Amino acid sequence: MEGVYLTPLKIIENPKGDILHALKSSSPFYSEFGEAYFSSINYDDIKGWKLHTKMILNLIVPVGEIEFVIYDDRSVSETKGDFFKVVLSRSNYYRLTIMPGLWLCFKGIGKSENILLNIASIEHEPEESKNMDLKYINLP
Amino acid sequence: MEGVYLTPLKIIENPKGDILHALKSSSPFYSEFGEAYFSSINYDDIKGWKLHTKMILNLIVPVGEIEFVIYDDRSVSETKGDFFKVVLSRSNYYRLTIMPGLWLCFKGIGKSENILLNIASIEHEPEESKNMDLKYINLP
Repeated sequence: MEGVYLTPLKIIENPKGDILHALKSSSPFYSEFGEAYFSSINYDDIKGWKLHTKMILNLIVPVGEIEFVIYDDRSVSETKGDFFKVVLSRSNYYRLTIMPGLWLCFKGIGKSENILLNIASIEHEPEESKNMDLKYINLP
Repeated sequence: MEGVYLTPLKIIENPKGDILHALKSSSPFYSEFGEAYFSSINYDDIKGWKLHTKMILNLIVPVGEIEFVIYDDRSVSETKGDFFKVVLSRSNYYRLTIMPGLWLCFKGIGKSENILLNIASIEHEPEESKNMDLKYINLP
């Protein structure tokens, strides 16, 4: 889906505790640093749908396992009406970059804690995002 | 200690999973985005000593509990020879900013996983940091 990019990330093993890469300023699809924050999601709970009109998201899952579903409702998109699904965790360790204009929801898959880091291109601004109740788009 | 800054961070409670702030481009002491990575540290293990000559560190502990010890060996510093100690976790949720030129080590305090996020001002460059065996500075 145009505007959705998965970039493999390295995990450097260390007997005292691993190093997990997240994002470099030279990484593909990096644009700008606005804000970094964590969002945790309980097992079986879903946060979404949310659409950002300006923010580029860079999502990394260092703890647990989270399923992301992206829905394309962009009027000029060749993939309008399509869904993109991916489950991220340390065993499928990728950075998920999402350009503005796409609907996103995510679900906690791991039975203990599930945490994502979002390194966003702009700071949080309540007016730049839209929310829609989960019931308005049927999950695939 | 000059060059060491603790900034309180918000945790926004949510029944589906909390939001934990980390860093904004407008935050105090933010300079530039170079790289973000995670470092995990096992219970009772210590990583360090390490000194960065260029990198500014912004350290956040979203999982577990980590003790940081900073040692000032800067020749022109008013606090030369001093130690700075702090334990960070979600119950003492601060961002720890460390300017270049200070020695750092950190220890896993939580019995399950302990993870820090470092949002660094430059990308990793092996030549800009120095390592010293833990035995050369007695921990306070």
